[in-house]
Amino acid sequence: MGSFQARTDLALEARESISEADSTLRGVIMEESYDEEDDIRVTRVEITTKNAAKALGKPMGVYITIEAPRMLEPDEDYHREISQVIADQLTDIIPDADKEQAILVVGLGNREVTADALGPHVVDNLFITRHVVKEFGKAAYNKKRMNMVSCMEPGVTGKTGMEAAEMIKGVIEQTTPSLMIVIDALAARSTRRLNRTVQISNTGIHPGSGVGNNRNALTEESMGIPVISIGVPTVVDAATIVEDALEKMFRNIKDKEQEWQLEADKNTLPELHNMYVASKDIDAVIKRLSYTVSEGINMALELE
Amino acid sequence: MGSFQARTDLALEARESISEADSTLRGVIMEESYDEEDDIRVTRVEITTKNAAKALGKPMGVYITIEAPRMLEPDEDYHREISQVIADQLTDIIPDADKEQAILVVGLGNREVTADALGPHVVDNLFITRHVVKEFGKAAYNKKRMNMVSCMEPGVTGKTGMEAAEMIKGVIEQTTPSLMIVIDALAARSTRRLNRTVQISNTGIHPGSGVGNNRNALTEESMGIPVISIGVPTVVDAATIVEDALEKMFRNIKDKEQEWQLEADKNTLPELHNMYVASKDIDAVIKRLSYTVSEGINMALELE
Amino acid sequence: MGSFQARTDLALEARESISEADSTLRGVIMEESYDEEDDIRVTRVEITTKNAAKALGKPMGVYITIEAPRMLEPDEDYHREISQVIADQLTDIIPDADKEQAILVVGLGNREVTADALGPHVVDNLFITRHVVKEFGKAAYNKKRMNMVSCMEPGVTGKTGMEAAEMIKGVIEQTTPSLMIVIDALAARSTRRLNRTVQISNTGIHPGSGVGNNRNALTEESMGIPVISIGVPTVVDAATIVEDALEKMFRNIKDKEQEWQLEADKNTLPELHNMYVASKDIDAVIKRLSYTVSEGINMALELE
Amino acid sequence: MGSFQARTDLALEARESISEADSTLRGVIMEESYDEEDDIRVTRVEITTKNAAKALGKPMGVYITIEAPRMLEPDEDYHREISQVIADQLTDIIPDADKEQAILVVGLGNREVTADALGPHVVDNLFITRHVVKEFGKAAYNKKRMNMVSCMEPGVTGKTGMEAAEMIKGVIEQTTPSLMIVIDALAARSTRRLNRTVQISNTGIHPGSGVGNNRNALTEESMGIPVISIGVPTVVDAATIVEDALEKMFRNIKDKEQEWQLEADKNTLPELHNMYVASKDIDAVIKRLSYTVSEGINMALELE
Repeated sequence: MGSFQARTDLALEARESISEADSTLRGVIMEESYDEEDDIRVTRVEITTKNAAKALGKPMGVYITIEAPRMLEPDEDYHREISQVIADQLTDIIPDADKEQAILVVGLGNREVTADALGPHVVDNLFITRHVVKEFGKAAYNKKRMNMVSCMEPGVTGKTGMEAAEMIKGVIEQTTPSLMIVIDALAARSTRRLNRTVQISNTGIHPGSGVGNNRNALTEESMGIPVISIGVPTVVDAATIVEDALEKMFRNIKDKEQEWQLEADKNTLPELHNMYVASKDIDAVIKRLSYTVSEGINMALELE
Repeated sequence: MGSFQARTDLALEARESISEADSTLRGVIMEESYDEEDDIRVTRVEITTKNAAKALGKPMGVYITIEAPRMLEPDEDYHREISQVIADQLTDIIPDADKEQAILVVGLGNREVTADALGPHVVDNLFITRHVVKEFGKAAYNKKRMNMVSCMEPGVTGKTGMEAAEMIKGVIEQTTPSLMIVIDALAARSTRRLNRTVQISNTGIHPGSGVGNNRNALTEESMGIPVISIGVPTVVDAATIVEDALEKMFRNIKDKEQEWQLEADKNTLPELHNMYVASKDIDAVIKRLSYTVSEGINMALELE
Repeated sequence: MGSFQARTDLALEARESISEADSTLRGVIMEESYDEEDDIRVTRVEITTKNAAKALGKPMGVYITIEAPRMLEPDEDYHREISQVIADQLTDIIPDADKEQAILVVGLGNREVTADALGPHVVDNLFITRHVVKEFGKAAYNKKRMNMVSCMEPGVTGKTGMEAAEMIKGVIEQTTPSLMIVIDALAARSTRRLNRTVQISNTGIHPGSGVGNNRNALTEESMGIPVISIGVPTVVDAATIVEDALEKMFRNIKDKEQEWQLEADKNTLPELHNMYVASKDIDAVIKRLSYTVSEGINMALELE
Repeated sequence: MGSFQARTDLALEARESISEADSTLRGVIMEESYDEEDDIRVTRVEITTKNAAKALGKPMGVYITIEAPRMLEPDEDYHREISQVIADQLTDIIPDADKEQAILVVGLGNREVTADALGPHVVDNLFITRHVVKEFGKAAYNKKRMNMVSCMEPGVTGKTGMEAAEMIKGVIEQTTPSLMIVIDALAARSTRRLNRTVQISNTGIHPGSGVGNNRNALTEESMGIPVISIGVPTVVDAATIVEDALEKMFRNIKDKEQEWQLEADKNTLPELHNMYVASKDIDAVIKRLSYTVSEGINMALELE
């Protein structure tokens, strides 16, 4: 999360901002499936035309949201189910997923800040094969088809002095993968979604407001290869939480003069913009979630 | 911080809640000194009578607050100044600080949650001598007087299944120190104080509301030896932040009916009570603060 | 491993030093089972009389050695098999394993030295229940019988200033478990056994040569409750390796004068006594082994 | 250390292998200075001609060895002295050290293996400026001249699937530094040098035997910019230790037949080639050394 600057703008918002009206828009295909037994909901939104992209303020592409409230619980079997759903969705969204390819998996974030350590922990648990295949061939795994999987953890700009995008682009040019998967902890807009949603997209990551700052984008355009992003909301921006609470207040206030006063108060909380909100058992949560996501990737990438 | 349950009730509140009226109360001695050059303010409140303790709702004892706004900055020389102030205050508050003694330093908190790792990191940096003195005598250090310093990191109840107080009491009975120093990350009531205040007291730590739950108290009464606590606010309770913002609103609302409405809204935020707010550069902050505190302790405990 | 001082004197040596002649000794019962499919060998030696104990130079009790060469491989299914074998042997050796009890699990070692971090990592992965059962009763787990499991990581003397035995004894007296399980990384005598052997005993841990230094023993006698130890050899003492190599040489040298010369050379390697030897992929190995051991304990302790 | 494969071939060997005869060789300039008070010896060997390089079997360039036996001790003042010596030598060997430049510092090694974590820990403690200078200019530091310092930790091939050299080359091409400094833990040939020697060279790092495997070399030739390497021996190859002990034996044996026998025995120790030897207090040692080295780099790079 680059010290928790909201780097990402993913499927979650898409789902939120797409009202029923939108879903009948030409150029928007929305599908939803719900596994009642496991209480896992998968929403898939595809924006297929430039017009629709403009109307929704989002790049064309696929946005998948996996919602699983029980993801918070330490139930191993359940997490295996979620890993399987992640694997299925990845297999679906990865171009030519049935063909052998070279895949670079990138774990964004800061290993030393618990709530931002998802990306680094995910790459810790991956099944890495590139160096073995390069040296010994697929024979080493006794398989007919084998992806070459590599991974990196670029670190955060405050510690490296470099943008993650710069480092990743350099590594891609040297090691020539055909696909990049990037994992990141997200800042959600609401505590309700913390640690129970996985978001997958093929539109890449647009840090900041996505305006201008293209130098840091992790997209097919900037990286030169398809980019699949996997995000899990693990924190909420502190200012967002307070603002949301205040918004609620506003709705109940009719007196215009008072509204003006409240707006003024709202502006007295700028210090919150350097703060984040996280769950108190964040260490156990991140451990479990990162394992669940890495297992999903391992399943998706292991050919036979 | 025991998964950030506010375990502590320290000097900060004392200073806050002691208005000018209180400071003229019999049984309350308040001193303040300010180092203008370094912008370090030290406030010392001593509650000397049962009546004053009752009036203020706090145990009798000494409450020291060191405020140093620049503590946030990565200036090594400045941190050395703060370490020196901490050392001076410890030397002042430790009973018989000029005599050799056996001291157990306890780092509360959870090493795996960045914002709660202050206690464990502080004990990592201490100068531990007990085992050497026991085996080789003071001669090993070529000093006339040498404290026997030991330390422990009890961990959090959710991971050990035991209260820190139980473990510490057991260790005290077996290793018979004459003094205990306990370090803890605190949950502040306001973001303004985060990471820039050190609180020292000789009244111990009263987890929870201090009512009834005496089994978990870390006090001279429960531990059998004097207890000096050192606390640094590193997080804010998320609910507190929102409530504070809402309180501000209330003040500006005269309409009783609306106030009632807002009160109702306030009750819709219970999920926040399992959340905490921390600074985005919490990893660097904790690293620096823990080093500053441990150096302060090392200076205070090193006899010659 | 207390900075890798060989703290332990467990089953491995027992198996080694018990020749065929010994196994016919009165007071020594030796059983061996071999699972050919999984290549897991379990050897159980029980010393039942004082005479036998004296003859073998070991306390009376049970010594179990699980040998599984493939333990080195990252095969999850295989590790589950080993966890099951560990669970079975624990169930066998724990007194009244079918009855509800309170169990303290202790992870010895130094979390910051990879090869010595086995104990701390094992307790990280345990299913801890004591605090929940104490607060909510067994009902919280919806089970008829539930053990109260707690754990601690005492740290190494060089960092705490205290002996692990002092700390553990204190914690036992305060929290009154009925059984203690202690996990430790061991220093093997030969590289052949590294990371592929699990040793279980009910005779406790006798640090050092077991002579005199009873203050630091972790035994039923010193702790007041039964002590089950689980050890995995993860390092070899460097001096041992060289000495073993030299011993081999001696065997091939007939000339007495030269033998005397070599003996002299051997004495020129004292610096090695502060060194240890570990496998180059020790990080991955410790991660896997600690998970395998903790799963074994979890299985053994979970009543229904 | 790439899982402790001896990646490096640095100054230490140079000093060893340069006998007095060599030092009079044309094309070899050898200087030595000794600070008696601090017991710090600095040896500087420069190979200036192709002939000399060929004769010595080493690339042309400068090899500096700082030997400081007391580096093992936890004396902060002494470590500051060593940092200063490192800074002086760096300033001497860095091309145009008095001019502003962009410097990429690379920490090789594996953060999760204590003895191999030197490189990662060194970059943790560096003063990183590139991102600030790029965004705000030198003005941010209120200095006339300011280097742009960035850093990376490529990880080990077994975990990333990529060679460190591939990743670094990519990052250099994207971020265009004018100089690279690379830090690595070394495998020494003898326990006598462990943790008390710092080696600096401008010939880069030639992994393996330096023959053929140029793809992985970290040299000015392969990277396109000058490469300064800093190495500290923290481990010894286990096989080396035993072989060295055996070599000693050989010297005392005159009987050719026995020598042949010993040679055979020596070949029975291949398993040792996957092992390393480290000091028992390696965690404290690595912490101190990495801080000492990073301070040396910080001093050398901070212009005014």
